[in-house]
Amino acid sequence: MKKFINAVDNVLTESLDGFVTAHSDILVLGEGHKFVRRRNLKAGKVGLVSGGGSGHEPLHGGLVGFGMLDAACPGQVFTSPTPDQMLEAAAAVNTGGGVLFIVKNYEGDRMNFDMAAEMSDGVLQVITNDDVAVEDSLYTIGRRGVAGTLVVEKIVGAAAEEGVDLVGLKALGDAVNGATRSMGVALTSCTVPAAGKPNFQIADDEMEFGVGIHGEPGRRRDKLGSADAIADEICAAITGDLGARAKGDALLFVNGFGGTPSMELYLMYNSARSILEKRGIRIARSLVGSYVTSLDMAGCSITVTMLDDRTAKLWDAPVHTAGLRWGM
Amino acid sequence: MKKFINAVDNVLTESLDGFVTAHSDILVLGEGHKFVRRRNLKAGKVGLVSGGGSGHEPLHGGLVGFGMLDAACPGQVFTSPTPDQMLEAAAAVNTGGGVLFIVKNYEGDRMNFDMAAEMSDGVLQVITNDDVAVEDSLYTIGRRGVAGTLVVEKIVGAAAEEGVDLVGLKALGDAVNGATRSMGVALTSCTVPAAGKPNFQIADDEMEFGVGIHGEPGRRRDKLGSADAIADEICAAITGDLGARAKGDALLFVNGFGGTPSMELYLMYNSARSILEKRGIRIARSLVGSYVTSLDMAGCSITVTMLDDRTAKLWDAPVHTAGLRWGM
Repeated sequence: MKKFINAVDNVLTESLDGFVTAHSDILVLGEGHKFVRRRNLKAGKVGLVSGGGSGHEPLHGGLVGFGMLDAACPGQVFTSPTPDQMLEAAAAVNTGGGVLFIVKNYEGDRMNFDMAAEMSDGVLQVITNDDVAVEDSLYTIGRRGVAGTLVVEKIVGAAAEEGVDLVGLKALGDAVNGATRSMGVALTSCTVPAAGKPNFQIADDEMEFGVGIHGEPGRRRDKLGSADAIADEICAAITGDLGARAKGDALLFVNGFGGTPSMELYLMYNSARSILEKRGIRIARSLVGSYVTSLDMAGCSITVTMLDDRTAKLWDAPVHTAGLRWGM
Repeated sequence: MKKFINAVDNVLTESLDGFVTAHSDILVLGEGHKFVRRRNLKAGKVGLVSGGGSGHEPLHGGLVGFGMLDAACPGQVFTSPTPDQMLEAAAAVNTGGGVLFIVKNYEGDRMNFDMAAEMSDGVLQVITNDDVAVEDSLYTIGRRGVAGTLVVEKIVGAAAEEGVDLVGLKALGDAVNGATRSMGVALTSCTVPAAGKPNFQIADDEMEFGVGIHGEPGRRRDKLGSADAIADEICAAITGDLGARAKGDALLFVNGFGGTPSMELYLMYNSARSILEKRGIRIARSLVGSYVTSLDMAGCSITVTMLDDRTAKLWDAPVHTAGLRWGM
């Protein structure tokens, strides 16, 4: 295993220490490294809390700040955070407006966020499940929550700044998740520090089509195709699943899994954009980069969120986090 | 070779097409894919032009926009752009204030930018050579220009927006370069699309200490050490080279080469920050992320720029590019 680490057991805490120090203008670390929260909370605003296993950075800690999350709970790599982390984060950011948990659909995360929600007052949840690759999977009942989670967090985060209440934010989050579809492909495995070896084996000429963000199996193992062929199949799966909704303005988000260079992501964006526009979707907003990663895995995912005037405006609203920043 | 491509010959043009389309609010593509320029030029402002081989994204095209570069010329992967690219870019962004070329010290880039400068009127050059790893190298006479180039481009770009003239910007760029030191380490090789195989071989327990941003050799091949040991040796090389200047406020920039996850970069930042502060350098500004990359190479570099009030303020000034954005 080739990584910049001191000791496997300290990777998460040392990394978090660096992260909050580098971004101390916007972030504060919770006691015991249990959560990262916004330095400046806004009284009465609904507190938005997310979290999950680490290794997907900048999701979620890198999306804490003005216009997005109020706190994020980091688990160990690819491991759910614990209910006490979520409880403490919720308590830390509840300034009177209640708390919304935004949770990717994985059994471990669901169970622990459910437990924390039951033990709290004034908490609702939005569950993201945007991955069209597979129904039920290694770690999920139903579809997995993947890169579309960032889109939900951005749009709901902007609405929270506007003062929308808890029930309204829950409805908006569900609606954005419902308008969002994703699918990914992996070219290499990732390596979890504690395991010390690649998560899975894949031949030099193969790709995992429909891969999850922990390297879990997708639809099939196949020979590596051209960028156009890959983009075409992903876009067909997305638009097929959107059905009649696949018409009008959309956000196209091409996400790198960590080990794929920017040049390739923009090449995939170029391909996906042209395919989607031929299918009647107008790409009104774009995001290209490694935002929902799987450590060092080479690969990418394509996410499409159908937009209306309101969600487009919320997407454009100012945001100031470590990982996503504009308008301020 | 596992990459998202259609044909090796089209990687650069397809990627550039995607890049300028995704960022069409700020960028325009020059004819024949010769350069990328700011959509909105400012009359009378000195035009800042950089460029170099592709594969280092977001450098340089991702640093074109308000507060940074006016144009960037992309060569093929790890290959200098040609003098006609630079000439056309300079002509496109010269709105009366002259043009400053910001050039990383590599023989190919130097020769071609020199040629373009000689064929133009009103062009000066700043040469970056921040890499303390080696004097003279595979592709350079003198030190290599690496991640510190981003710092020069940001600070000079902000001064250009303020209306500083060509001679003033040249002096400022030279001064910032002179206050900047970098060094990197690679854990894996990168793979250039046209070559189809890794640039170099490296054993599973080895690192290339002092590596260049094309994977070229550094100081030595060594056994992979701990993050702290690596950071300590790099910081010692940097502060040793800075000598008496290694005192006071600095920007600490931990840069990923492309294949290294964010968690590890922040862990390295944590380590480097603590080491530098013990040596009397106060980390007043921070940047952590993969900004000056070597395709998919795993590894990172550490850059320190000593700051004064003026350069700190210019660093903080608003910037709006694809790769770096704040304050607007």
